[in-house]
Amino acid sequence: MTSRTENPYEVDLDRNAANHVPLSPLSFIRRTAAVYPHRTAVIHGQIRRNWSETYERCVRLASALAQRGIGVGDTVAVMAPNVPELLEAHFGVPMTGGVLNALNVRLDSEAIAFILDHSETKVLITDREFAAVVKPALARLERPVLVIDIDDPMARGGELLGELTYEQFLATGDPDFAWTLPDDEWRAIALNYTSGTTGNPKGVVYHHRGAYLNATGNILTWAMPHHPVYLWTLPMFHCNGWCFPWTVTAMAGTHVCLRAIAARSIFDAVADHNVTHLCGAPIIMGLLINAPPEQRRPIPAGIRMMTAGAAPPAAVIEKMERLGFQIIHVYGLTEVYGPVTVCAWHDLWDQLPVEQRAVFKARQGVNSPVLEGLMVANANTLEPVPSDGTTIGEVFMRGNVVMRGYLKNPRATREAFEGGWFHTGDLAVMHENGYIEIRDRSKDIIISGGENISTIEVESVLYRHPAVQEAAVVARPDEKWGETPCAFVTLKPDQEVSEAELIAFCRQNLAHFKCPRHIVFTELPKTSTGKIQKFVLRQMVKEV
Amino acid sequence: MTSRTENPYEVDLDRNAANHVPLSPLSFIRRTAAVYPHRTAVIHGQIRRNWSETYERCVRLASALAQRGIGVGDTVAVMAPNVPELLEAHFGVPMTGGVLNALNVRLDSEAIAFILDHSETKVLITDREFAAVVKPALARLERPVLVIDIDDPMARGGELLGELTYEQFLATGDPDFAWTLPDDEWRAIALNYTSGTTGNPKGVVYHHRGAYLNATGNILTWAMPHHPVYLWTLPMFHCNGWCFPWTVTAMAGTHVCLRAIAARSIFDAVADHNVTHLCGAPIIMGLLINAPPEQRRPIPAGIRMMTAGAAPPAAVIEKMERLGFQIIHVYGLTEVYGPVTVCAWHDLWDQLPVEQRAVFKARQGVNSPVLEGLMVANANTLEPVPSDGTTIGEVFMRGNVVMRGYLKNPRATREAFEGGWFHTGDLAVMHENGYIEIRDRSKDIIISGGENISTIEVESVLYRHPAVQEAAVVARPDEKWGETPCAFVTLKPDQEVSEAELIAFCRQNLAHFKCPRHIVFTELPKTSTGKIQKFVLRQMVKEV
Repeated sequence: MTSRTENPYEVDLDRNAANHVPLSPLSFIRRTAAVYPHRTAVIHGQIRRNWSETYERCVRLASALAQRGIGVGDTVAVMAPNVPELLEAHFGVPMTGGVLNALNVRLDSEAIAFILDHSETKVLITDREFAAVVKPALARLERPVLVIDIDDPMARGGELLGELTYEQFLATGDPDFAWTLPDDEWRAIALNYTSGTTGNPKGVVYHHRGAYLNATGNILTWAMPHHPVYLWTLPMFHCNGWCFPWTVTAMAGTHVCLRAIAARSIFDAVADHNVTHLCGAPIIMGLLINAPPEQRRPIPAGIRMMTAGAAPPAAVIEKMERLGFQIIHVYGLTEVYGPVTVCAWHDLWDQLPVEQRAVFKARQGVNSPVLEGLMVANANTLEPVPSDGTTIGEVFMRGNVVMRGYLKNPRATREAFEGGWFHTGDLAVMHENGYIEIRDRSKDIIISGGENISTIEVESVLYRHPAVQEAAVVARPDEKWGETPCAFVTLKPDQEVSEAELIAFCRQNLAHFKCPRHIVFTELPKTSTGKIQKFVLRQMVKEV
Repeated sequence: MTSRTENPYEVDLDRNAANHVPLSPLSFIRRTAAVYPHRTAVIHGQIRRNWSETYERCVRLASALAQRGIGVGDTVAVMAPNVPELLEAHFGVPMTGGVLNALNVRLDSEAIAFILDHSETKVLITDREFAAVVKPALARLERPVLVIDIDDPMARGGELLGELTYEQFLATGDPDFAWTLPDDEWRAIALNYTSGTTGNPKGVVYHHRGAYLNATGNILTWAMPHHPVYLWTLPMFHCNGWCFPWTVTAMAGTHVCLRAIAARSIFDAVADHNVTHLCGAPIIMGLLINAPPEQRRPIPAGIRMMTAGAAPPAAVIEKMERLGFQIIHVYGLTEVYGPVTVCAWHDLWDQLPVEQRAVFKARQGVNSPVLEGLMVANANTLEPVPSDGTTIGEVFMRGNVVMRGYLKNPRATREAFEGGWFHTGDLAVMHENGYIEIRDRSKDIIISGGENISTIEVESVLYRHPAVQEAAVVARPDEKWGETPCAFVTLKPDQEVSEAELIAFCRQNLAHFKCPRHIVFTELPKTSTGKIQKFVLRQMVKEV
């Protein structure tokens, strides 16, 4: 740095309360509620709430939490589908200085218990429908947790587990609670657990600065208009819904909640509320294009969908565009707050035949305006690969929308940031025009219906079966789910078990979506050093 | 702050090169040039340059400056109208760590000399057309300054003053120069001198963080689409063109340069290049709505104009909207990077009669998404005034788009930030819906018989009279009332109205005590930036 006597710009021009305020998405809701108090903020079934009401509920939530002792660095977990309560928690929890941990509702009790324990959760807000999973998870905990029930009339079954309901809890809050922005924009705002491809899930820590910037980045990437009507097809527990709870709020839009993801409910919501924007994995597109005619409704003109999670097959994109959806393809990971690359479109490409357009659109593309660095490079040397569309390297990222790190896991954090870049673990090529294309999701992961499935986790269950000698799981392409797990198993000598029995065994020990759909009994191909060759199995799986 | 042992989020989760990058608008051009190299970046007369070429020119400029020793904290001044060279300087200068000082081309030699000296300018890039002013200014300087000439074929007259031309200078630069982002986003990026109505001009220091955020704020406020075609009617030397050099670049738009601001050239540029967006003071709107038919051209559908600088009279807004321009009214000051409030529109207001709509649109409105705090308050106590639409207070602001302070003027900086808010010096009321409306500069307000009279309110009534082209109201000393309003009016060509008739018109539309007691028909004295010089009128009023 130039010394003060030489650089006049470093004299008497310091930060103060007037010219420096921590960046936080909490600023968005304060402004939107003040400017557009009467606009519709949330639609959920028969419920309509405007921004004034929604803001008041968030402030009440913050106040009620603060009264229970929640403050800076305290974790509040939420187990819920895309309901208003989870949206409100995106504001109410950080208004206290607390950290939101939105749980994946498809996890099993063991995983939920691990996360509640590891995150040192002090309050759990949980939807009645998931009581069967949450109750045993709570029973495993040694620490006391304040449990608050979301008693949604639209929930199916379940039971109330906690001390009081969410609405009772809100009633204890002060609508004039004087919440504050964080004292530092680097403070944690959210915690999101990865699926844990190797061992236990890792807790990804987001900060206010990154949440603000990725929320803004979504607006720039999509050139989002004021007052979008956003349909919640993407789970809010996925990277905080790719930051869209904050994005849609910044643009004073309407959040259309959706408990159950099905073709009919999506078509209905889109048509009934004139939805303008939605997000989701290719499985959502599959639902829509394969829906029977009686479930379909007219699509509003100009509706836009952002997709990620697996490269969408060209044919799927094509069919969606014929249905009337403008598709934008993005890519990201839990560690980077959701989508941070975009297949930025070029007008010239509109002239291309539909197949070629779909090939281009299936690429993961370029860094979004808020991702500062993106490269495909040699995993050891960090030397970028040539932009030839064929040389495979690892995807590396750098920028303010990269996580702070993994909670209480300094070793994993250090490895993830080695060399000053975030190591995605995904493999890609760089095309001549600077667009990346993922060739192999980090080599073992399976993405089924938008959910990551760790093959190691599935394999470890298989290994627990007394008849199994060796097991290896790879992704099997699936029209509906994108991918499903397929297991290759070698049995112990003189042991017998049927495919159905082994799948049933997995179902007793794993979340259902993680269970293999197919099991092949065979010898496993191995390297000279005895490592199972998964790339051979990936060839074999095509025959299954 | 919670101690480390208590807050797990503050352990081993520090900033590093992968997850923290200084915010800077320089990131925008790097990305846009990489993603859209072949899109048109700049149009200037017959010149068309794409983003690849424009980026290369910026990098060459940075390299050439660095070779001449320009680095962190060094000031590079530019004296130019809205030409590509000034746009390039918005990137090339900060790429070196230097600070851009865009000079107001309407200033006189003495003011230019003061600024070059005060800012410790090391390099001056100057357009031939302004040689007559710049040459004597340079003669006054004691320090050596490297002078580089912009030799634009479209410039009228003048002479070359410097060591070499801008194109020769670029040729000395390395197109592969490895520029870097600032080491800290708080570093100065630009210096803009206020017009200095009292005493010497003050140098307002902008930083990279604020420039990035206000550039983004423009996109949010306008819900700007990708690839806007932006016409440079607003001077780039005004608050760095309200940050639009960076905004338009972030959205990979096209900058349409314009040396001379006249109705014909604006209509031509708009029609020839399908302009989508432009900015400007109400004087630009006046030019357009009063243009003779032979200068007019068809207006592209959906064209949008952002206006600020003086509250646009309702009648002017109405006429512009009839011409086909969608007007958005914003407000700001040099100290806050340009526009930071916006008259955010409500759909409901579309139903109102045109006069009422114009009354609403003339309000300065609410904080933009990037301004964190906005209030109208008692200037001494900082106590907010009631939201009653009548109590006048001073406008205060807070946020990341507030300047670092005034260069080498710690006293003015301290005064401007007293109490942790930026004191705008503008007087306003707060309406019931939270929208502010500027009543006056604090020094312009008229106090008559103890009552505040907003000169802007009186002027807006005068503007509604069909014979009036321009109007300005100042206080006239009065033995009985202390002060009374005196109006200076320019009539439209071929129009006539008497003083008595105009006063009678005011009485139909204003409280009597607010009506001018005297009206003077005359040309209005203006500043170099087209602002009416009320201090000249205050001298003239003594003769009335």
